[in-house]
Amino acid sequence: MSEVQDRLELDDLQQELREIQALVHRRDLSAMQGRLDRLHPADVAFLLEALPLEERLAVWDLVKADRDGDILVEVSDAVRESLIEAMDSRELVAAAETLDADEIADLAPDLPDEVIAELVQSLPAEERERLRAALSYEEGTVGALMDFAHIAVREDVTLETVTRYLRRLDELPDHTDQLFVVDRARQLRGTLPITRLIVTDLEREVSGVLEPEAVRFTPADDAGEAASAFERYDLVSAPVVDEQGRLVGRLTVDAVVDFIREKSAESQLAEAGLAEEEDIFASVAASFRNRWSWLAVNLVTAFVASRVIDAFEHSIAQLVALAALMPIVAGIGGNSGNQTVTMIVRALALGQIQPGVWRQLVRKEIGVALLNGVVWGGLLGAAAGLLYGSLALGGVLALAMLLNLVLAASAGVAIPWLRARFGRDPAVGSSVLITACTDSGGFFIFLGLASLFLV
Amino acid sequence: MSEVQDRLELDDLQQELREIQALVHRRDLSAMQGRLDRLHPADVAFLLEALPLEERLAVWDLVKADRDGDILVEVSDAVRESLIEAMDSRELVAAAETLDADEIADLAPDLPDEVIAELVQSLPAEERERLRAALSYEEGTVGALMDFAHIAVREDVTLETVTRYLRRLDELPDHTDQLFVVDRARQLRGTLPITRLIVTDLEREVSGVLEPEAVRFTPADDAGEAASAFERYDLVSAPVVDEQGRLVGRLTVDAVVDFIREKSAESQLAEAGLAEEEDIFASVAASFRNRWSWLAVNLVTAFVASRVIDAFEHSIAQLVALAALMPIVAGIGGNSGNQTVTMIVRALALGQIQPGVWRQLVRKEIGVALLNGVVWGGLLGAAAGLLYGSLALGGVLALAMLLNLVLAASAGVAIPWLRARFGRDPAVGSSVLITACTDSGGFFIFLGLASLFLV
Repeated sequence: MSEVQDRLELDDLQQELREIQALVHRRDLSAMQGRLDRLHPADVAFLLEALPLEERLAVWDLVKADRDGDILVEVSDAVRESLIEAMDSRELVAAAETLDADEIADLAPDLPDEVIAELVQSLPAEERERLRAALSYEEGTVGALMDFAHIAVREDVTLETVTRYLRRLDELPDHTDQLFVVDRARQLRGTLPITRLIVTDLEREVSGVLEPEAVRFTPADDAGEAASAFERYDLVSAPVVDEQGRLVGRLTVDAVVDFIREKSAESQLAEAGLAEEEDIFASVAASFRNRWSWLAVNLVTAFVASRVIDAFEHSIAQLVALAALMPIVAGIGGNSGNQTVTMIVRALALGQIQPGVWRQLVRKEIGVALLNGVVWGGLLGAAAGLLYGSLALGGVLALAMLLNLVLAASAGVAIPWLRARFGRDPAVGSSVLITACTDSGGFFIFLGLASLFLV
Repeated sequence: MSEVQDRLELDDLQQELREIQALVHRRDLSAMQGRLDRLHPADVAFLLEALPLEERLAVWDLVKADRDGDILVEVSDAVRESLIEAMDSRELVAAAETLDADEIADLAPDLPDEVIAELVQSLPAEERERLRAALSYEEGTVGALMDFAHIAVREDVTLETVTRYLRRLDELPDHTDQLFVVDRARQLRGTLPITRLIVTDLEREVSGVLEPEAVRFTPADDAGEAASAFERYDLVSAPVVDEQGRLVGRLTVDAVVDFIREKSAESQLAEAGLAEEEDIFASVAASFRNRWSWLAVNLVTAFVASRVIDAFEHSIAQLVALAALMPIVAGIGGNSGNQTVTMIVRALALGQIQPGVWRQLVRKEIGVALLNGVVWGGLLGAAAGLLYGSLALGGVLALAMLLNLVLAASAGVAIPWLRARFGRDPAVGSSVLITACTDSGGFFIFLGLASLFLV
């Protein structure tokens, strides 16, 4: 980045946001323009996300056209859609042309087809090839995260030659902590940490000081595993090679950080039943679309649970206290089952669960369930017994809680195990499935026991 | 790191894990030793986490003593406790002595007091000061994440002098993408990107090429905000200065990545009601302690909901279908309230919500609730009407769902708003609170309406 731009902390950013909002209301365009030009693209992106649609578009209009591309790359998907809708094809092509191939590929899903076609036409041959490659990698792979801004050097030259070559470049790409060493066939031979150029005698040959054992990835590698390697080995950048071992790009820690953040946001949103990140100022219709599918699933499982209760209509009519107590049994099962599922899904994601340890895990979880059942079942059973003046009712409640906790523990291990075994992502929907089990199961166990022993 | 160590992808790690487990069973100590020595400390940490307690300690015994420290820093808190329990004071002091002050501070909460006292005695004066400083910073601050491995240079020297100075160091610390430029009083003047030493004329003075505007932090800054600055500005390292602007340390991207991962794990675990990360091979008693508090909270709210139902005992006795249908009303409210809360808590955490927009958010959420209420309430109301042959019952169910969705939307905005207003973390417990509202509220609304119109 050649221009000097302010870099702000969150407090300052929020101050900036308030002041810009005041300027929008006063329609003081020139003061706004001045402020926006001083801000880093990531901070303009932040402001755009935090502004309601109308103000957002007023600000977007004032952003200098040559920065549009950088800012579009930074905003969230939902907000990006709202910005792209306000631009015509000509503006979109101009914005995208300022970007690197890997960044264009990130925008591509939101761009109209004719814009992409025009872009491909306008790019130089090498960039066009890169864009084509970048577009071909699936989301969640190293290919989708990598960039092409690496510097490759040959192993049979001296460090002096490398240094001279670097001096000819105006500036090194961000996150260049190492150069990649290749042979004539672009086969990766190793990496050359940039600090070696400073601390080592410049007359030595690259081949004598390179690191042959560097971590490398292929474009098809799973991005999550690459992120975990970056975390374990504290990497700043790593080479990406094709199946023949030829250098094709690099992965940098900033892309990895963005990926980790997005993944964690996604799983948080999915657990709450949101399909994707939501623009907080989205229309009611857009929010409805983002949320309806999980509500529908929830209604189906609630409907099933309702049918289970209905089957015991007769018992409830005779002993209405059952209706009041049954949500307690279902609730503790759902809560405790979710604890088990979350722990196991995490351990699976970290690769810590060996095929041989499942039985051990089931045993442990059932142990915890029995202990919980005795403690909480005993407590609530005693309370219910006193409240309704019926020892038998208290006993049935306690036993039902214990059994539903054991069901929750078994299902809490079994659901992720089954999903992993059949090659599905154990995280998605596990919480909904376990709650469905423990709701219907809890009602069935409690009302069933009550029908046997009480009515 | 001077030794050559393998760096593995997750698949290879799991292979390694299986082979080491086989060696543990065969008690082939020398083969195990050989394998362990070849592994990176982070990978040994991974193996230790994935092994049941007995095998874990067998492997831990074989790890070379001089690597104990590095590995203890890498394992999770729960597993660290199990390893430290197996070591005596002498071993602990020896292990900690191989670490930097900031790493010792990370271990300190798990170390016995006498070990810390002995450590402080044995450290050189400068390291002792650093350890004392590092121990004084609260968790969640920049101080707790920073290290002291920065290189500081003066602004009135030439790049040539800087280069000569760096050559005298054996190797530069990891993540040295920039040097920190200070004056005589250690006041930070700016930073010098390491690549400038390669591409710039070495006769120039540092003062002429430094970056004066670099992002800087103080030890008391919030670590989450620092992480967000690293993400926005794609930083690899940043200087940390005291209140007088004097350089005291640095923050690097690897510490930030670890922080982001830990935070996201914490919030995932907290949502499921686990107090902290759990060793998957923890004892039943340890797991119980980690999980009981949220179960207790859940039981209290379930008990309250149960009392609400009990108050309508009379209505349920007359129309048992109410008992079967009421979980549907509570369920959709809980689910949809959690969607609202999650979206708002995220936007708050990202700093995107301005004080002025709350009313707009409430309006939008109530809009979504009304739409959901008409769609799902209409659907389920019609189904219940047909099923029980009562138009009135269907109508009451539909209306109750609509009203509980509106309650969920209002509470879903109000709960994080109130918590944020009173300076609490809006994330913690929001999900439990909203579910408590929508359960008790849902039962009350449905059974109340039924009592008014049906019985």
